[in-house]
Amino acid sequence: MSQETRTVKVALLGAGTVGAEVARILAEDEAILTSRAGARLALDSVVVRNTQADRGPYIPRDLITADAEAAVDRADLVIELMGGIDPARGLIERALNRSVPVVTGNKALLATHGDSLFALAAANSTLLSYEAAVAGAIPILRPLAESLAGDTVTKVMGIVNGSTNYILDKMDREGADLEDVMQEASELGYLEADPSADVEGYDAAAKAALLASLSFGGTFTLDQVHTEGITQVTAADVTAARESGQVVKLLAIVEKAEAGVLMRVHPALISREHPLAAVHGAFNAVFVQAENAGELMFYGQGAGGAPTASAVMGDVVMAARALVTGAAPAAGSTGAEVAALPVSASLTRYALGIDVVDAPGVLARISTVFAEHGVSIESMQQYGRSGLDEDSNVRLRIITHEGRQSALDATVAAVNHLDVVEAITSVMRVEGN
Amino acid sequence: MSQETRTVKVALLGAGTVGAEVARILAEDEAILTSRAGARLALDSVVVRNTQADRGPYIPRDLITADAEAAVDRADLVIELMGGIDPARGLIERALNRSVPVVTGNKALLATHGDSLFALAAANSTLLSYEAAVAGAIPILRPLAESLAGDTVTKVMGIVNGSTNYILDKMDREGADLEDVMQEASELGYLEADPSADVEGYDAAAKAALLASLSFGGTFTLDQVHTEGITQVTAADVTAARESGQVVKLLAIVEKAEAGVLMRVHPALISREHPLAAVHGAFNAVFVQAENAGELMFYGQGAGGAPTASAVMGDVVMAARALVTGAAPAAGSTGAEVAALPVSASLTRYALGIDVVDAPGVLARISTVFAEHGVSIESMQQYGRSGLDEDSNVRLRIITHEGRQSALDATVAAVNHLDVVEAITSVMRVEGN
Repeated sequence: MSQETRTVKVALLGAGTVGAEVARILAEDEAILTSRAGARLALDSVVVRNTQADRGPYIPRDLITADAEAAVDRADLVIELMGGIDPARGLIERALNRSVPVVTGNKALLATHGDSLFALAAANSTLLSYEAAVAGAIPILRPLAESLAGDTVTKVMGIVNGSTNYILDKMDREGADLEDVMQEASELGYLEADPSADVEGYDAAAKAALLASLSFGGTFTLDQVHTEGITQVTAADVTAARESGQVVKLLAIVEKAEAGVLMRVHPALISREHPLAAVHGAFNAVFVQAENAGELMFYGQGAGGAPTASAVMGDVVMAARALVTGAAPAAGSTGAEVAALPVSASLTRYALGIDVVDAPGVLARISTVFAEHGVSIESMQQYGRSGLDEDSNVRLRIITHEGRQSALDATVAAVNHLDVVEAITSVMRVEGN
Repeated sequence: MSQETRTVKVALLGAGTVGAEVARILAEDEAILTSRAGARLALDSVVVRNTQADRGPYIPRDLITADAEAAVDRADLVIELMGGIDPARGLIERALNRSVPVVTGNKALLATHGDSLFALAAANSTLLSYEAAVAGAIPILRPLAESLAGDTVTKVMGIVNGSTNYILDKMDREGADLEDVMQEASELGYLEADPSADVEGYDAAAKAALLASLSFGGTFTLDQVHTEGITQVTAADVTAARESGQVVKLLAIVEKAEAGVLMRVHPALISREHPLAAVHGAFNAVFVQAENAGELMFYGQGAGGAPTASAVMGDVVMAARALVTGAAPAAGSTGAEVAALPVSASLTRYALGIDVVDAPGVLARISTVFAEHGVSIESMQQYGRSGLDEDSNVRLRIITHEGRQSALDATVAAVNHLDVVEAITSVMRVEGN
């Protein structure tokens, strides 16, 4: 390495909340970034659609351009924060084809076209880094890919969507209804105008696909993840959970089974003693089970300008350092063929709320249905009549032992057909031991 | 890289709890380790003092030797798990001088001689890796050194000693006395025969020095860390904390001040809402505050054979991969001159228990002493007479706002001299906002 500090020209694609923070950090922390990267990180161009808007003191006017291709062609390192599939995909491909390392926070893109993009990076001996795409500021990429390189991850459960965690946490603390809390979250800016990516679970599903790829090799896509959002969660579900020492969380769960990988996003009950239960507000956390390490958890902010920019900048410094030292890029996906399995193959536990006729023999008939399906009951509680429409009904809360989801679903269907059953009022999975 | 898989000859120094697990993983997971490292990791020698003992199926008799120097000289990679200063130090130096990468879990050695060892590794362009020394299985080295390479860590608070966390957690849950819980912890094997490294805080102090080096550059030593153990913590302290919505934890705290770095280990009160409060039993966690990422926490097992071996093996795979790819080792300490500051310069809050005479004007006199020292009071509570020796006394619990520790100490001394004060029954720092 020569004495003279090399300059790495950086193209920033996108100057939204995160991009603006990246530009600020590049300017404010220039000296420390230079010492850590071993190169001066010089912002060379900022690609935006509206080139006329004032972007503040950290994005000089003369760097602003709408010509993304020219910006990419001039860069030594590309930061892609435009989001969406196109034109982000083509621009990343353009950079990688020039062996220029790319740092991206684009989970939707990686969870649909990650396979070809990672292959392209490997073919060009360069890096495609994406820490910010998995869980915002939470360092998870290097812990999974490097710190646990000598261990075997068996299961990952993440609270990876801050908006829905904020909503569920608020419902838990205040006993409020979903609609009311969603309304409030919108007003506070915790929910987008179209909240479906959050509340339907799609954002969490994209992250689940990335977590599965990181944990188990292979490259998985969003559409392979079984996805249920929080729209069906009621104040009654949350209250029942609380009374049982549990809490409702939207979990992204990926786990290794013999035949492949199971990926699912759904609301689940976890014990209040579980570390994930202590994740409040808009915070995120990723809980990891590994054969030797046992239980690990990584906690932090999953969104927001500065926190996400922190993850982006970690990738940028490491990519610049690799440029300077000429190090071979870290191995990406193993390229192993790992199958995505249907959610019916999941092993899980169910918590059921069932309204039944108050008559002798009802419990025996219900228990028999469970036994016939090979599902064993861990606990059964009977509640009084209060709050029910029918005077002659009682509500049962049944929690099962672990079983295959297909068997649990078949049990629920069969119970629903019993004449003594008025309604199945809630079905929720129970996770974490 | 040729088609033929290279073999990396591994010398294992020490075959205790962690060493035995490392040998097991090397044997059981050979295929997966080979694919991840890009090289076959072949156990070449196991150095122990007693060569006659049977070491089980994963440590073949013909690999066992007492000749550590010969073992090191034959190795491509050395794993040091002997502990202690000598002969570990000389053997690590011997390996590094041959440019052979070393993986160690030896916190005591690194927290006393890390400076010269890291310099030696750098001078020989090789790696000295130590994930297992910082917080057992918890990935913290790469998150701090790489994931946060584009951010600035301002403060780290760790629960980094499982034995003392087990004891304090048990006192909190059961209202038990320190002595009783220590007795039980000894019987369960959570405490060494000589428990002083744990309960006096020395183990946590060594980890604090490593956390400070990782977070702020420079190389710090154990003797620069202000260290108080848990031996003074009473059941009354724990109960008072509980009644105030707090919990007592032994924290290792390192933080950046303008003039240098503050490092301290002591029992502290934190709010039950703080993520560290949810760290129960023998678990560990490292809470990190960074300028852009905000609050992060890393949670897991800080000790035990398999968990610690997981961290060792992560380092081993990464070191072997670097051997195969010929990559330059990651930058170690920045070599920056960062001063260790005296603990009196710390900004902290105090919770004080004070027994006072029950007479008019007492609160005013005490408040005046605080004001004279520039320490402001956040809350003051008065408790009844029950449990006190003197009928005419009452107990106050005062929590201050943040102040310099030197000012807080001067305040405590001055309050202690007031004639209306019978005794200062407890002084404990309050951490985390």
